[in-house]
Amino acid sequence: MHAEILATGSELLSPERSDTNSLWLTARLEEIGIPVRRKTIVGDHGPDLQEAISQALGRAELVICTGGLGPTRDDVTREAAAQATGCCLRSDPAIEEALRRRFAERGMEMPSNNLRQAMVPEGARCLPNRLGTAPGILLEMHGRWLALLPGPPREMQPMFLEELLPALRPHAGPLRMARRVLKVYGLTESGLDQRIAPLVRAFPEVEVTVNFSPLDLELRLATRGSGSEPEEGLDSFCARLREELGPHLFSEAGEGLEQVVARMLRARGLDLALGEVASGGLLAARLSQVDAPLRCALLVPSPPLPGESTGSTLLPWPADLPSARAAASRWRRETGAALSLVVGAGRVSGQQARVPMALSHAEGTNEQELLMMAGPLLSTRASQGGLNLVRLGLAGASRD
Amino acid sequence: MHAEILATGSELLSPERSDTNSLWLTARLEEIGIPVRRKTIVGDHGPDLQEAISQALGRAELVICTGGLGPTRDDVTREAAAQATGCCLRSDPAIEEALRRRFAERGMEMPSNNLRQAMVPEGARCLPNRLGTAPGILLEMHGRWLALLPGPPREMQPMFLEELLPALRPHAGPLRMARRVLKVYGLTESGLDQRIAPLVRAFPEVEVTVNFSPLDLELRLATRGSGSEPEEGLDSFCARLREELGPHLFSEAGEGLEQVVARMLRARGLDLALGEVASGGLLAARLSQVDAPLRCALLVPSPPLPGESTGSTLLPWPADLPSARAAASRWRRETGAALSLVVGAGRVSGQQARVPMALSHAEGTNEQELLMMAGPLLSTRASQGGLNLVRLGLAGASRD
Repeated sequence: MHAEILATGSELLSPERSDTNSLWLTARLEEIGIPVRRKTIVGDHGPDLQEAISQALGRAELVICTGGLGPTRDDVTREAAAQATGCCLRSDPAIEEALRRRFAERGMEMPSNNLRQAMVPEGARCLPNRLGTAPGILLEMHGRWLALLPGPPREMQPMFLEELLPALRPHAGPLRMARRVLKVYGLTESGLDQRIAPLVRAFPEVEVTVNFSPLDLELRLATRGSGSEPEEGLDSFCARLREELGPHLFSEAGEGLEQVVARMLRARGLDLALGEVASGGLLAARLSQVDAPLRCALLVPSPPLPGESTGSTLLPWPADLPSARAAASRWRRETGAALSLVVGAGRVSGQQARVPMALSHAEGTNEQELLMMAGPLLSTRASQGGLNLVRLGLAGASRD
Repeated sequence: MHAEILATGSELLSPERSDTNSLWLTARLEEIGIPVRRKTIVGDHGPDLQEAISQALGRAELVICTGGLGPTRDDVTREAAAQATGCCLRSDPAIEEALRRRFAERGMEMPSNNLRQAMVPEGARCLPNRLGTAPGILLEMHGRWLALLPGPPREMQPMFLEELLPALRPHAGPLRMARRVLKVYGLTESGLDQRIAPLVRAFPEVEVTVNFSPLDLELRLATRGSGSEPEEGLDSFCARLREELGPHLFSEAGEGLEQVVARMLRARGLDLALGEVASGGLLAARLSQVDAPLRCALLVPSPPLPGESTGSTLLPWPADLPSARAAASRWRRETGAALSLVVGAGRVSGQQARVPMALSHAEGTNEQELLMMAGPLLSTRASQGGLNLVRLGLAGASRD
């Protein structure tokens, strides 16, 4: 069995909105072995949608349509599906009753156009909607399935999981798709490529993609198999990858470095004080967003204000390793934190910047001077470098 | 003329990647009066793509296809387009020569599969690629246009603007689409809806959508017309909206509140010191990301650490308006900044939290206690409330 996904709604043809329902549906379908072969987006125009449904049903055993089940005139999915499949629409008294009850419970009178939501193609099964007025519809004919789901994700997702998924499971494919996202820091894209090349050759069944971002490298793994096979395949791949990449591999669950550091701090009952220059407050924001045990964070802008060559009186403006180290110890003493990380000022020369940073803790200091591209992403990269220094310090690993 | 967009690439059928080229293309096409009526995503499978191209050419005068022009075997767009249109592919000596030169200039030998990129359907026009090896292709037949563009946005976008757009312009529609994004703070969604209802009725030609986020309300306006008509329509709509919404309307160009505040500070040559509790460092991060003139920012986590009821010695932990006010003046004195904003601790009771905040400046203090939902978005909402206090303080407007 393979699937096509159809999204309807004129807003999805505007420059601002893209269809995200299909991403979620694709993941759920792949998990039960149903690959998605095409995605189509049409506006709220009956004939367009009708044609798209007919053609999709001509190609795929499963067609899932999202959106256009609302009560207003621009909601045309029910009619288009009935016409595409040659079924008649008739009003379902049970749905009508449920709609009336829903409104009565809220002390409201039901607008008459909501009655459109009780119209169901003959022979179709109704998929109840716990979280909205629009029920879903499942039509099965000649071994082909057409499912109509509502557009809002908070209605569509539980309906898919509770109603459609159990019905699909017996027809699902023997080969499930399993995926995993790993995160790597401190290697270039080509460096990573080179180091994993033998592994990629040794596991031809695992599809490996590398995505590059200013923060880290993301390794996406995907494999197909029956039973527990794909998970086991990914487990062995990851075990070999761990050996190969050592401390460069910082997450096997797609986590950000701030989540990893927050978890390590919590596990050891330690707290962290931050002094930021080049990272522009991003370290504090990233760590406080994941509820890391932060004691205190001070941001001094870089470059310093005119007439101030040494930064604030609270945190001298560290422009090299010795002064970053001194600032980190002093900041740890002043704040009483278990660890203190100071990210110094970026010294820009040409297109490159050097950022000194130091981590002070009970056993001493870790420090590094990072070389990175100058420019608008400098603070992002400096925050990532700082987090990695904390991670390596906490892991007791050598600097890399 | 109306358009369909086809994106090819199996990664676009995975759960992680969605097609963003089509959003950019839709915006450019709408600007010259060509609406997009359908978007289709197919994998790297020749017959699927060929069928999709034929069907799209049967419906739309303009079909734009992105992706699949690379040198490898999974790049099938050229062949699929030739088959769909019944044209023969032949090698273009000029492209072949340009490809060889490109590799020679980099001192590399050209892999033979790059020669596939010199194959062009007979009768087609070639669209040069300044930034990559894959040239684009434009086929015109029976009044229908088929354009093949590369997938990477940095190659696709300049090729569209420099090569395809000038060719399309003479065939563009008389009715351009103009759009504008406005930002509102301090009203509920339904409150905003009520206040703009008369305006929406008075301008039936302007399509208005309201998007809700934890930060602000976004008003998206769209209108269609010829010449300068749509821009003028939006101008009058915005003028009336300004009167109606007063200081609630903070941007008419889709800017974030941090951009507005940064610009106001720069325009007056003022700098700002921050003391953050409930906003969790987000104020500093948001302002430093847009290069606002920050002097210094201190983050003290909320709630305080065990045994510390008054926060850091640097910034007492302000839990009500009088102490937020005192902390703001003290922090301004200590840092020497022109303005100082202190966002105090959130006092949670049930599902709600009260956050005191004060802005100290040369003429005195502005203050407010914001009532907001407790929970994971508290710091985001508190940062927005703080930025708005700075904005109103700088504008000299009354508190609202």
